[in-house]
Amino acid sequence: MCRWLTYCGEPIYLDKVLFEPRNSLINQSLHARHSHVTTNGDGFGLGWYGERGVPGVYRDILPAWNDANLKSLSHQIRSGLFLAHVRASTGTATARSNCHPFSHNNWLFMHNGQIGGYERLRRRLEGPVDDDYYPHRLGTTDSELMFYLLFSEGLETDPILALQRSVGRINQERDALGVDAPFRLTATLTDGARIYAIRYSTDETPPSLYWCRTSTHLMVVSEPLDDDVVDRCWHEIPANQLLVVERSGQIDMVPFIPE
Amino acid sequence: MCRWLTYCGEPIYLDKVLFEPRNSLINQSLHARHSHVTTNGDGFGLGWYGERGVPGVYRDILPAWNDANLKSLSHQIRSGLFLAHVRASTGTATARSNCHPFSHNNWLFMHNGQIGGYERLRRRLEGPVDDDYYPHRLGTTDSELMFYLLFSEGLETDPILALQRSVGRINQERDALGVDAPFRLTATLTDGARIYAIRYSTDETPPSLYWCRTSTHLMVVSEPLDDDVVDRCWHEIPANQLLVVERSGQIDMVPFIPE
Amino acid sequence: MCRWLTYCGEPIYLDKVLFEPRNSLINQSLHARHSHVTTNGDGFGLGWYGERGVPGVYRDILPAWNDANLKSLSHQIRSGLFLAHVRASTGTATARSNCHPFSHNNWLFMHNGQIGGYERLRRRLEGPVDDDYYPHRLGTTDSELMFYLLFSEGLETDPILALQRSVGRINQERDALGVDAPFRLTATLTDGARIYAIRYSTDETPPSLYWCRTSTHLMVVSEPLDDDVVDRCWHEIPANQLLVVERSGQIDMVPFIPE
Amino acid sequence: MCRWLTYCGEPIYLDKVLFEPRNSLINQSLHARHSHVTTNGDGFGLGWYGERGVPGVYRDILPAWNDANLKSLSHQIRSGLFLAHVRASTGTATARSNCHPFSHNNWLFMHNGQIGGYERLRRRLEGPVDDDYYPHRLGTTDSELMFYLLFSEGLETDPILALQRSVGRINQERDALGVDAPFRLTATLTDGARIYAIRYSTDETPPSLYWCRTSTHLMVVSEPLDDDVVDRCWHEIPANQLLVVERSGQIDMVPFIPE
Repeated sequence: MCRWLTYCGEPIYLDKVLFEPRNSLINQSLHARHSHVTTNGDGFGLGWYGERGVPGVYRDILPAWNDANLKSLSHQIRSGLFLAHVRASTGTATARSNCHPFSHNNWLFMHNGQIGGYERLRRRLEGPVDDDYYPHRLGTTDSELMFYLLFSEGLETDPILALQRSVGRINQERDALGVDAPFRLTATLTDGARIYAIRYSTDETPPSLYWCRTSTHLMVVSEPLDDDVVDRCWHEIPANQLLVVERSGQIDMVPFIPE
Repeated sequence: MCRWLTYCGEPIYLDKVLFEPRNSLINQSLHARHSHVTTNGDGFGLGWYGERGVPGVYRDILPAWNDANLKSLSHQIRSGLFLAHVRASTGTATARSNCHPFSHNNWLFMHNGQIGGYERLRRRLEGPVDDDYYPHRLGTTDSELMFYLLFSEGLETDPILALQRSVGRINQERDALGVDAPFRLTATLTDGARIYAIRYSTDETPPSLYWCRTSTHLMVVSEPLDDDVVDRCWHEIPANQLLVVERSGQIDMVPFIPE
Repeated sequence: MCRWLTYCGEPIYLDKVLFEPRNSLINQSLHARHSHVTTNGDGFGLGWYGERGVPGVYRDILPAWNDANLKSLSHQIRSGLFLAHVRASTGTATARSNCHPFSHNNWLFMHNGQIGGYERLRRRLEGPVDDDYYPHRLGTTDSELMFYLLFSEGLETDPILALQRSVGRINQERDALGVDAPFRLTATLTDGARIYAIRYSTDETPPSLYWCRTSTHLMVVSEPLDDDVVDRCWHEIPANQLLVVERSGQIDMVPFIPE
Repeated sequence: MCRWLTYCGEPIYLDKVLFEPRNSLINQSLHARHSHVTTNGDGFGLGWYGERGVPGVYRDILPAWNDANLKSLSHQIRSGLFLAHVRASTGTATARSNCHPFSHNNWLFMHNGQIGGYERLRRRLEGPVDDDYYPHRLGTTDSELMFYLLFSEGLETDPILALQRSVGRINQERDALGVDAPFRLTATLTDGARIYAIRYSTDETPPSLYWCRTSTHLMVVSEPLDDDVVDRCWHEIPANQLLVVERSGQIDMVPFIPE
């Protein structure tokens, strides 16, 4: 289980939300509260949209709580749309190429959860990845594989359909092999213009996911950044829902049903 | 606060005590039990005596719990005297040169605790380090500095006296500057023939320290490696005591009084 | 292009050949002489057979020339059969899981060269990897993939046939896709009892490979460890030859013809 | 010997000068041309002035030529004043805290060269560092020590005098100990408003240093970024000269005479 945060709104310096809140993501890297796995020390990553055609990405394998680069970068970088992730490995190696977010062209993707039975499913899920995307895989995680599966299912033309098809296909392969271990997915997917945040699981216990909207921004997080859930209006995203957020701030919550 | 382990006895493969016990040192790197600081993810180190004139040292800045090299090395290396340490930084940078154990010639030293007020004391404690040892400092920790202070106070001729003098001198400098923050020291010091394990503090709460002797070996640890303290005969080392262990297994517990 | 060294003979401390010779492998990491690529700073690795059922492996992503751990470990570890490799990436990420040698059970494999057109061939070469081996892949290199292809082609029962079949299959897939970029292979493969060192290429310029036998040992290397090729009896291994070395020292040079 | 680059002028994305030129700094990390030491693979660093009160700093211990973070960051970050450095260690450990540039408040400093005899001089040069600055030292290099010596000699009120006094003091200590090894210094020092670039040596062979001014910017570099020195107007900075550059583009070249 990992922890992550997505911010969309008025451009701010990243440290404002990554370091300053009481239960900031960086503190969650040491002491997560809403998870069995309390230490997320197997690397971290940042992805942000600035002025270039592609988002910036900074990922490293050290624990986030003690990385001077992360501190300086998040003090300097200002963005109106960024993703941050602290990792607790579920089996694959600690390597930069296994850290989230994953990026391709103008897209970013990060994930907390697990494709249960991934070791057995891996090859079957690699099959439908298009030749165009296949060589872009740099690591070995289930998350990066799912990212390129999304592309292969039409992410760039219809992201919601691509999500439905990809999750559907994963479920079909799970069924085909009789995998019992659940497929759990809390993820952010974005092209820099629109954000898709999903909470889904094949069992009754999807990882936690919350959102909060203020007058200046919207955040989606694995767990609230401060103790007082009421004041900051943290809402739990129900299971099997997809939150669609425009850069303008408009949001839409839709049921998520795999194809 | 860090966690450490010293083993002396029948030569064994290191993973036997580093990985296998329920509350092994590697598990303590994720979930220490006898400490406020429960995560020791800011690097780790091994020091062991083999067949060469100097001990081997392996140190890295990644968390110990997920380091494939550490796993393979501790499966291959067999030793009758070794030290292992997992680090939670008390302020200095995460760098290999700040990881324990420190080595010089045939000596190894590792430390859990802190010289309170180190930032102010640092230069005053560097003063008495001999010119011969001064350039050997590779990092910036209080622990490495104390190691070379020990050499300067005659470690190679009378280790106990060197400990008494070094701790005494640190206390004098603390007094001179009016430092209130306590000086806490649980440490192992060894030349490969004899081991000195100390538990000392200027206040009433020295870090925890335990020892255990079986028919084949003796261990000194920050916290017991299994739950059942009685069965495995873990004894707490009282505050301000020095445990002296010969390679033959003979032990001596003496009060520690700084000069 | 990488540089590597295989040693088989009287057990020695590894630094004897890794650090001491004038053109030692560690020096080659900074200044290779027999290669267009003169800097091999994208990680390194050691694999050695000791007293356990599986070989030890130590790999890291730093340049070998400045790694204190490598220096200490190779001073401590003694072995009668070991492999060492310094890496210059041909495209895949700098990650421990992409460093050689690769290990599985009692086998080690390391490679200098390249499967030309790997990006296009990758999926086709993954196809014939057995399900039993597929999840063991931790990185994304052509070399690691070839290692598991060898297992799938019967490495454990007939290593030479597995080599012939694997190289043959790679060539078939190259032909099928019309890949022009050459497939170059200088590699060591060993189960701890017998060593297979191969020099092969689909074009006229396989990477360099030399062997040398003294009264105490045999070495196979990318380039000689000292200037005076004559005195130390370095022999070039001809293209498309396979050198088979028994632990006893007996050797056999056979033509290598892919199936 | 290291390689470095200082840019001042119209804000640009950093990759424009770090990656794009034929002999870019990143290429120099693999193949420096104007130096005996041709590989600068022992870490790197960036420092840049953006919109905050303090400059941003990104330093890592991997070779610059293969760092995906560096590539992404320098594609995203735009600045009108930045420093970049690739390191070849002259003895101290490979650690982030030993990588340039060093930063303190709004100041940055980076250095190519060496205080000859540093091991013997170190303590004597630490003596005059003010208590206020002493604890800020995170590494063990001669360069970082000189940076805090500059602060102690009044950097914030009169930078040129601080340089003269610091170099003068180093020379006095060299004389006092009879150090023969030369003190060589090519460095950039800046508070974000004015840049001081120095080329100095106690012997006849200071490290190379060049500057170039176009209609949009000024650069100071260890070696020109392209082959055609004439066209790009690269000028060698003579030995023992100090180039002072205003953000406005105004420059002044003055002889440098230590106090």
